[in-house]
Amino acid sequence: MAVGEFELIERYFRQEAGALGVAMGVGDDCALLNVPEGQQLAVSMDTLVGGIHFPKNADPELIAERALRVNLSDLAAMGAEPMWFTLGLTLPNANSQWVKGFSQGLFRVANEYNIALVGGDTTRGHLSITIQVHGTVEPGRALMRGNASVGDEVFVTGPVGNGAAALAVIKQELEVGKSAFNYFMDHYYRPQPQLQQAKTLCGIAEAAIDISDGLVADLGHICEQSVVGATLHLERVPLSEPVTKLVPFEKGIQWALSGGDDYQLCFTVPPSRMSQLEALVDQKRLQVHHIGEITRGKGVTCLYNGEEVSINTEGYQHFDSKG
Amino acid sequence: MAVGEFELIERYFRQEAGALGVAMGVGDDCALLNVPEGQQLAVSMDTLVGGIHFPKNADPELIAERALRVNLSDLAAMGAEPMWFTLGLTLPNANSQWVKGFSQGLFRVANEYNIALVGGDTTRGHLSITIQVHGTVEPGRALMRGNASVGDEVFVTGPVGNGAAALAVIKQELEVGKSAFNYFMDHYYRPQPQLQQAKTLCGIAEAAIDISDGLVADLGHICEQSVVGATLHLERVPLSEPVTKLVPFEKGIQWALSGGDDYQLCFTVPPSRMSQLEALVDQKRLQVHHIGEITRGKGVTCLYNGEEVSINTEGYQHFDSKG
Repeated sequence: MAVGEFELIERYFRQEAGALGVAMGVGDDCALLNVPEGQQLAVSMDTLVGGIHFPKNADPELIAERALRVNLSDLAAMGAEPMWFTLGLTLPNANSQWVKGFSQGLFRVANEYNIALVGGDTTRGHLSITIQVHGTVEPGRALMRGNASVGDEVFVTGPVGNGAAALAVIKQELEVGKSAFNYFMDHYYRPQPQLQQAKTLCGIAEAAIDISDGLVADLGHICEQSVVGATLHLERVPLSEPVTKLVPFEKGIQWALSGGDDYQLCFTVPPSRMSQLEALVDQKRLQVHHIGEITRGKGVTCLYNGEEVSINTEGYQHFDSKG
Repeated sequence: MAVGEFELIERYFRQEAGALGVAMGVGDDCALLNVPEGQQLAVSMDTLVGGIHFPKNADPELIAERALRVNLSDLAAMGAEPMWFTLGLTLPNANSQWVKGFSQGLFRVANEYNIALVGGDTTRGHLSITIQVHGTVEPGRALMRGNASVGDEVFVTGPVGNGAAALAVIKQELEVGKSAFNYFMDHYYRPQPQLQQAKTLCGIAEAAIDISDGLVADLGHICEQSVVGATLHLERVPLSEPVTKLVPFEKGIQWALSGGDDYQLCFTVPPSRMSQLEALVDQKRLQVHHIGEITRGKGVTCLYNGEEVSINTEGYQHFDSKG
């Protein structure tokens, strides 16, 4: 493939100049960015590989949506405001129809969340997408995994288990009706980064993480970094209506605990800030589910109606779960 | 492959905390970085695909060296100071021996250029490496492609053509003796980002670019962005001794003009700053070769001893140049 074709591709990704803080975007050796004074820069990079993190033949608009949304979720998990992103796109060939669709999906999400594409690289190879997002956060306000303390309450921002359900549907392990199919596909390809809620939580929540590996694994990351334990009350873990309609509770909760790909936030709030949290919930500025508490000890303990249960957390399953 | 294996891999990439400006490195949803006040952030992302940008069976230490050095060259082309980098590593399997070698090569370069690994992602898939480098530069001091003016003189910092020669050796199109082999392999896997010279050039050079696609293509990028033309005097273009020993001038200059992978800087200096440049050369703070000038018009014109010659610039050839 000639270089020229890739140069053509890159034109799909040139945006109008003028995004906030961009002194130089696509088109030079580096992008030049002005980080607002007094703000910390939050950066996160995620790679999505065709055939592993999404089906290779998926609609390119949806692949792009998923890739950028998943990355934005990492900014949400930090309480950071999206500013800029870079794109490393590796393609088996210069299919302009594919690239057009991909760029449309990408800019739709970029516009929705007000994040500007400022650079990247386009290469030939097996289909793979690496995105790095850049956001800003006031020093000391970021929601860190390591900030949880014994006695904090544990919350999630919405239903978990949809990611695993969607994966089962995509892998044709489960048959579902049209409306459930659409619901899960929408969840899979268009996960909602919880940026707005995260911003509201800054100053109230202590630790936070986005649920990408499953509730137990991700809450486990908070425990590990904070050197604490956690108790989860399974009967309080919110499942979506389509999940509860589709499978028994045991399956649904298994999905929620170990499925991943949910992109809700799991966060902790110290007792002293519970009244602030409740006020924000009353004002409908937050939607939260109180699912557990931080304890002394290590790791995540699961209780069902007060009795300890052992959970087979086989961890995150990729779209292609070989190996 | 289980997630656990990739978590093990990621441990190879955890560095001690304490690098300049890193409030949070590897281990949370985002890295948190403090950009020094009054500095612009320069970022650049490059993807290197196994079998395309390097032989898949190459020594992982060398693959890592090349990947980071090539990215650092983009900071040099901007006159930026290296600060932090992120790594997106896609591997076909969790071969800890390979990863150990890769991390050793990576940190050797990181330590040499004082750049800290602050985050990234490790996934399963075809071998591919995406690195984003982050540097700082004083506003208004960056060396931009679009800053060249008619009458500027054109320079390179060192010999060009080594990249193409190395590629020919790797592809076994050329047989060479042991010392030339080592010279070209060293150039290919351990290109020298011209960071020190770039820093010295800030305030003297106007436009700059690093030579990754070949001298004509890269000087052409300066012309395009600056809306000017350029004249190159081929007899002044520096070739390395191993290249001049190996092939006739015609082949060597072809490599220099259209080969790429050289990672020298091509830059322009206005007549008013030529005496400053010469003083720095006399002080041995710069090593430069005066190869042409910026003109009215469009594109790059090549002269050989004053006569216009037409050059077949077939552009950059990847390691695997199929397609």
